[in-house]
Amino acid sequence: MSKGTSIDALTRIGQDIVESIMAGRFPVFDIPDRRTGNIIFDTDEQEYVIGPTSVRRDSSNIRHVKSFAQLVWVASFAKELLKNNRTSSLRDLYYSSEAFDIEFADQAESDRIVGDLECLTGLPREEFGIFPEERSSIFGRVTMQYTVKGYEGKTVDLTISPDGLPIGPALMTAEPLDCKAELILAVESGGMFSRLIETRAWERFNAVLVQLGGQPPRATRRLIRRLHKTLDLPVYIFTDGDPWGMHIARVIMSGSANSAHIRELTVPTAKWMGVTADDIVSYSLPSEPMTNADLKRLDELKNDVRYNSSEWLHHINAFKDIRMKAEQQAFSRYGIDYVVDTYLADKLP
Amino acid sequence: MSKGTSIDALTRIGQDIVESIMAGRFPVFDIPDRRTGNIIFDTDEQEYVIGPTSVRRDSSNIRHVKSFAQLVWVASFAKELLKNNRTSSLRDLYYSSEAFDIEFADQAESDRIVGDLECLTGLPREEFGIFPEERSSIFGRVTMQYTVKGYEGKTVDLTISPDGLPIGPALMTAEPLDCKAELILAVESGGMFSRLIETRAWERFNAVLVQLGGQPPRATRRLIRRLHKTLDLPVYIFTDGDPWGMHIARVIMSGSANSAHIRELTVPTAKWMGVTADDIVSYSLPSEPMTNADLKRLDELKNDVRYNSSEWLHHINAFKDIRMKAEQQAFSRYGIDYVVDTYLADKLP
Repeated sequence: MSKGTSIDALTRIGQDIVESIMAGRFPVFDIPDRRTGNIIFDTDEQEYVIGPTSVRRDSSNIRHVKSFAQLVWVASFAKELLKNNRTSSLRDLYYSSEAFDIEFADQAESDRIVGDLECLTGLPREEFGIFPEERSSIFGRVTMQYTVKGYEGKTVDLTISPDGLPIGPALMTAEPLDCKAELILAVESGGMFSRLIETRAWERFNAVLVQLGGQPPRATRRLIRRLHKTLDLPVYIFTDGDPWGMHIARVIMSGSANSAHIRELTVPTAKWMGVTADDIVSYSLPSEPMTNADLKRLDELKNDVRYNSSEWLHHINAFKDIRMKAEQQAFSRYGIDYVVDTYLADKLP
Repeated sequence: MSKGTSIDALTRIGQDIVESIMAGRFPVFDIPDRRTGNIIFDTDEQEYVIGPTSVRRDSSNIRHVKSFAQLVWVASFAKELLKNNRTSSLRDLYYSSEAFDIEFADQAESDRIVGDLECLTGLPREEFGIFPEERSSIFGRVTMQYTVKGYEGKTVDLTISPDGLPIGPALMTAEPLDCKAELILAVESGGMFSRLIETRAWERFNAVLVQLGGQPPRATRRLIRRLHKTLDLPVYIFTDGDPWGMHIARVIMSGSANSAHIRELTVPTAKWMGVTADDIVSYSLPSEPMTNADLKRLDELKNDVRYNSSEWLHHINAFKDIRMKAEQQAFSRYGIDYVVDTYLADKLP
């Protein structure tokens, strides 16, 4: 996505407002409705999408005027960022509003208005230079070219740092130039990520490694998607063996209701490698009993539309049968190289 | 610290055990006592140190034999790591023990035994290739040379990635070769870290930037200390304006009781820049009322030996007077460049 697209989208918002006022009408925004009733699971595409309903935010309505003004301010803040080739965290955006008497009650409110801007423009906040603080990391034989100020045109090989590179604003907006890898392997924990770098598993499996660190920031999901699409790399996801780990994979594949309004986030063809309940049994992994919260989560997932397939229901039921869970680190009981030499070698193509 | 030193320390442990057995004696460990009574605040050095008391772990004592064996196993695990030029997370170490029937009750127990090994050898776990999972980041004009397997002799310029580089096992064990910076500026939040990179504050202030992310991992404190000592760089710490932020700075300066047994972690001459209570007032920062937990924490710090100086008591009392706190992002109310152009310009030399 080019910077031009985002600036155009913002300019159009401003033009619409000006035109309304010139024509003697109160300006309005028609924003795709992000409430539960309008979020649809597209079973063909296997991902969440937003439905056809819009909500109108009308500046002539006293109950709308505050959030209308907040949205205009967020749009103008975003335009300043883009014009100056700058970025902002969601937190900084919240504090920046204070000088303008915008009166967000808290950061949850400003985050929500950023969501409205995403809905209105159809573009993710990252396209406007707005990022959360969390970071995950990446490592692999891909060359990326930066576009951020001060680094325009510079390239970086994603194997340059044996600790991985953080997926921050710079890498997020960089363009893949060249790739010697054949697949993307996303792993849940930082320990596993370090292990796979150190053992040169990235070389052995020709893999770009991504460290997720729990449910990954959206920027990480976007980068996985972009590398998948641009470089035609299949995606494999390796998490802890519990409902939470399984759901990390499912969200990368099919998205979440919260981000249904954002396109280009999901990789429906990604594969969850495990740790599955079957793996816990067949590799005799050190495991521990599921808590009530784990079991309750399994029941929730069972009713979740994203799990409505025989394959996923099998995974859920297998966990319910054994009532045990295991971390991806659990393979270390067989030696610290076992996970690479045996488990990944078994599971990767 | 060279790898030789760590291997020698481990070899010595093994030799002592063998000699005892050959001489018909049950082997024992004399480990510096890490309990509260033996942790002393050295007011001259302004840091915590461990006192003269030792505890004996005696393999002839039925109550000691389990932890004795656990310590021997951790030492042998560490030696395997070093011999093979490998690293392990604390979590992996815990799981690796399962194959040996070592029976750690939980990771807290294996972490504690790793602490015993540190005490016994006087070397931090990082010297044995054992790391926690958390990471902070670094950025600045320093060239480091890696020593980890596969990267031996390779150098990296710490400005290579405009998102910063994670302080992981590789960077932690790299050697500083060359430096164009004149000071270290450690900041609490990832948002501030990104801001200072993007605005080229590192160039303007000639600073190596370190992102702490709350109380930083010990590896980060060690790297700050090493750069400070090796490159003769003064250290400045910029945190949120609340007791927790203030304490991040104080721990970098004087260490904590938990790590009193580890040498070479502290920078007693580091300066806490703020956000101080005085800053909240003089810069009219957006602030919010302290919670009861914040106020209670101030009382605790008031009784903490590390705050027993007129300067620190002034900071504590000033917070108690205004009963308000502010984040470092709060400067954004004056525009996103204000923190660099005004606050840091005021406060840095």
